[in-house]
Amino acid sequence: MENLTNREEALKIRQEHQGILEVAGKVPLKNRHDLSVLYTPGVAEPCKDIKLNKDLSLELTCRGNMVAVVTDGTRVLGLGDIGPEAAMPVMEGKCILFKVFGDVDAVPICLDTKDPAKIIETVKLLQPTFAGINLEDLASPKCYDIEDTLKEQMDIPVFHDDQHGTAIAALSAVIGALRLVKKDLKTARIVVNGAGAAGSAIGRLLVSAGARNLTMVDMNGALYDGMPGLNRIQAELAKSTNPEKKQGKLPEIAKGADVLIGVSGPGLFTKEIIAGMNKDSIVFGLANPVPETTYEDGKAAGARVVGTGRSDAPNQVNNVTVFPGIFRGALDARARRITEEMKLAAAYAIADLIPEKELREDFVVVDVFDPRVAPAVAAAVAKVAVETGVARVKVDPEEVRAKTAARIKMGK
Amino acid sequence: MENLTNREEALKIRQEHQGILEVAGKVPLKNRHDLSVLYTPGVAEPCKDIKLNKDLSLELTCRGNMVAVVTDGTRVLGLGDIGPEAAMPVMEGKCILFKVFGDVDAVPICLDTKDPAKIIETVKLLQPTFAGINLEDLASPKCYDIEDTLKEQMDIPVFHDDQHGTAIAALSAVIGALRLVKKDLKTARIVVNGAGAAGSAIGRLLVSAGARNLTMVDMNGALYDGMPGLNRIQAELAKSTNPEKKQGKLPEIAKGADVLIGVSGPGLFTKEIIAGMNKDSIVFGLANPVPETTYEDGKAAGARVVGTGRSDAPNQVNNVTVFPGIFRGALDARARRITEEMKLAAAYAIADLIPEKELREDFVVVDVFDPRVAPAVAAAVAKVAVETGVARVKVDPEEVRAKTAARIKMGK
Repeated sequence: MENLTNREEALKIRQEHQGILEVAGKVPLKNRHDLSVLYTPGVAEPCKDIKLNKDLSLELTCRGNMVAVVTDGTRVLGLGDIGPEAAMPVMEGKCILFKVFGDVDAVPICLDTKDPAKIIETVKLLQPTFAGINLEDLASPKCYDIEDTLKEQMDIPVFHDDQHGTAIAALSAVIGALRLVKKDLKTARIVVNGAGAAGSAIGRLLVSAGARNLTMVDMNGALYDGMPGLNRIQAELAKSTNPEKKQGKLPEIAKGADVLIGVSGPGLFTKEIIAGMNKDSIVFGLANPVPETTYEDGKAAGARVVGTGRSDAPNQVNNVTVFPGIFRGALDARARRITEEMKLAAAYAIADLIPEKELREDFVVVDVFDPRVAPAVAAAVAKVAVETGVARVKVDPEEVRAKTAARIKMGK
Repeated sequence: MENLTNREEALKIRQEHQGILEVAGKVPLKNRHDLSVLYTPGVAEPCKDIKLNKDLSLELTCRGNMVAVVTDGTRVLGLGDIGPEAAMPVMEGKCILFKVFGDVDAVPICLDTKDPAKIIETVKLLQPTFAGINLEDLASPKCYDIEDTLKEQMDIPVFHDDQHGTAIAALSAVIGALRLVKKDLKTARIVVNGAGAAGSAIGRLLVSAGARNLTMVDMNGALYDGMPGLNRIQAELAKSTNPEKKQGKLPEIAKGADVLIGVSGPGLFTKEIIAGMNKDSIVFGLANPVPETTYEDGKAAGARVVGTGRSDAPNQVNNVTVFPGIFRGALDARARRITEEMKLAAAYAIADLIPEKELREDFVVVDVFDPRVAPAVAAAVAKVAVETGVARVKVDPEEVRAKTAARIKMGK
């Protein structure tokens, strides 16, 4: 390719191909015989079987491997509420990641409404078409009600990736970093700056993972039990975090912290804040595209481990390590839900890919292109799904791992 | 493949592949650079451009080539109301036909409701995702209201294939047969047996094409203006057909007819009925899988031209000659609707593929695998779309024809 800017290249490839996603047949259709098997009269046979047992549609049709990537376009990247048409490139890109990294057939669904009730109704009506729902780029706080209602009322996994994908990726990074510095997740003093959808999800998952000395901070300072102005999720989180009910802004709260995680805004982790943390401090600045601190600045300020969302620096925290494997495992187990246990299993599966002796300050997070990631996550998720009765079928996790490794096209 | 029955083969291929449809990337994603173009940060560029002009999503994303194949599963094949899960194999099969015959990226959408208002609402909310809507296997008469409302309220083509695909295929066959026997569509006495969705659509399109001596017949006999018990579509049709207001059952009405078309039930065209038609009679028995008359029986009874929906007999009338090219042309012209003029152009484009001197009694309908079909239909449809102002872009029909021929995978 000639020497194009990223903008030029991003537009050119989409113009030339009219987008980057297509639908394809898995089998050839070349003649009358193929037509009679793939369409009439043969197609009536799976119809008749599924009529007697709806779950067979997960085995006999593409539904079993199909996930809807659903958005209303209200919170797209850092661009905000740009509408469902303009959200399509992101959904399409996400669908390619699903395919390349997890061999999941993901379909973009951009909805022409911002009304949570209509979004819920529509997604529920789509259940016979899909085996899973990936919610994407929905504004907060409505994303909570949409996800909770759908999880309660649907019989297939519903997963808001901006919350849980990010949370699982962050937790796996924190696990790796704490192993390197030999600190314990349960006792480490952890501060999360940013209590929106992603930040709150990170906080909730850290609590699920056993963190007992965690404080959430947002623009108004540390979240504490009884703080006015919190949304439902923040209020719940405030009860199980900030054990000393500290109040105060980030610079104060971050003093002496072992781990500082940002899902907030560019440059918010100043040299002073990082320098004031505990020995062997761990800093993850996950704001995109400009993090709370760059790798270099964080290190220079005294942090031992620094990670960001950027691919041009060490320790990239990116949910592409998460959602393809999570759904791969859930689909293989024909899971009805994605549970907290499955999320934790995913985080540990990612972290466990780096043995302790291989951990380095600049390598506590596995590479997004490491071909072991999705197979490991899928196996761990399927295992828990089977063990906890969330799976419709009993699959062997090692078989899921091997099959995933064989089917993903990543790097091929 | 070993010697399997059609049922065994149809189930086996779906079990082995977990259905027959998948999603794929159009471009490779192999490394960090690809990731930065196909996803963040590059993906923000088309988002920003589309935010300023929504129609750009038809150019810069897969939306421009994506059609939803929507059903509620209430009238699937001859199986009836089998539900949305059980309808999936048919939708999936239809999507493969769209791809193979027209390079249209079609996505199955099986909805978990039978309520017309909810179906309408849902499909409207999907508009930002798709460039066209193909309605499929919806029960009659609700299919009329659903389609009419969606056509009125949406800005992309909405096409109920069971009605219009069948009607266009039937009209093209009638044109070919009448050319062979040198009769005129305007004056020929035509009888359509069956006034459900497909039969009524055939009747309406024949009227649009200029037929002036047409009579619709259903179980209660010939439809006439003022007949009690007609639905809205049948009542309209009764006004523009049956000029002599004849009453009576099929055997009587079919006497002396030039053309008899059935979308009714197996074996309904008896030897006596066919024998009683005019000289050089034309009979199309389109009931599936068992037609109103077989090719052999129809010929033996004295019909000059006989056609059915079956692939194992001459003159197969099948809407796979229609919908791929119709949507190909509409998508290429970025059409806002599929109009009556576009449907007529499609029918003539198909018929015109057989020059008069090549017409034979057993060859008045072009082969479904003839690679000229979709390019011809697409070109004709795009031409009319541009001429009548339905198109968003001015495309050259000959370019549409050539590009369609190049891109379709049929037979490859």
